[in-house]
Amino acid sequence: MRKVTYGGANSLDNFLARPDGAVDWLLWCDEAQAVMADCWKTIDTVLMGRKTYEFALSHGGVYPGVTAYVFSRTLPPDANKGAKIISTDAADFVRDLKQQPGKDICLMSGGELARSLFEADLIDEIGLNIHPVLLGTGVPLFHPMNRQIDLELAECKTFKNGCVVVTYRVKH
Amino acid sequence: MRKVTYGGANSLDNFLARPDGAVDWLLWCDEAQAVMADCWKTIDTVLMGRKTYEFALSHGGVYPGVTAYVFSRTLPPDANKGAKIISTDAADFVRDLKQQPGKDICLMSGGELARSLFEADLIDEIGLNIHPVLLGTGVPLFHPMNRQIDLELAECKTFKNGCVVVTYRVKH
Repeated sequence: MRKVTYGGANSLDNFLARPDGAVDWLLWCDEAQAVMADCWKTIDTVLMGRKTYEFALSHGGVYPGVTAYVFSRTLPPDANKGAKIISTDAADFVRDLKQQPGKDICLMSGGELARSLFEADLIDEIGLNIHPVLLGTGVPLFHPMNRQIDLELAECKTFKNGCVVVTYRVKH
Repeated sequence: MRKVTYGGANSLDNFLARPDGAVDWLLWCDEAQAVMADCWKTIDTVLMGRKTYEFALSHGGVYPGVTAYVFSRTLPPDANKGAKIISTDAADFVRDLKQQPGKDICLMSGGELARSLFEADLIDEIGLNIHPVLLGTGVPLFHPMNRQIDLELAECKTFKNGCVVVTYRVKH
């Protein structure tokens, strides 16, 4: 079955971006580039919420070469700018998608879509690039959830710039 | 000058405890015990907010062998059960305390006292034992702050049980 990974770069206080979506605090390096390149080889599908999609559109567009699904009940279905708009239940859609043939799936949401997929036990892996900063405020990586998710540490490494890269498997 | 460290065990979604203060999810191991033993050798003072103090009192009392200061505007000054109650401004008190002779200082607060001391730039180090779990809800490690805190990774190691132990220096 296809694996769904929730991943991204975050601050130590677990923000994905500043309140206005800005990611000027991200540290880029060859090591991060290598990790991302490895990741892209394993996936053919990305999942996004509406806000992440609109942020991507305003910053160069949706990633080419992969199928992008955007979960939104308000975007028109034909708003197709490189992505397929899904207005039905996200958990049902992703449960079905995991059964279909294909490479792995990356959830690039802000935390709201992640919460509903965590609660439905549809996320298999978490991959974070924890940056050495407390932003103080911003877009949360994890929203309050109605249940506990137990994890297993799969990998932990540090970059020269002080980022800590961790991968966890979700215990289903 | 004496160093102030904000430390503790947290979930990957940055909770210190469940909503009712429960820490039943903590993983204990010889490696954690060794880290804690090393830490206790370097400090002679702990700082707490009222809620952490009351939790400590109901779970065996305040740590012996160190001076404990509890910041509270509501507790009576003579409520002395192994701790000194400080009702004046926490930042002013800690700024003065750091200038006095002594070993290092550990901030064992929940996040509210930490926020005010971070905002006043009085915390020098963060030490976390990140547990492999998303609690979903609980007592936050970091509260929203009015400024960004830049950090420098000092150490990162993993325990056999999947905990990731990180130490950061605060860039003042």
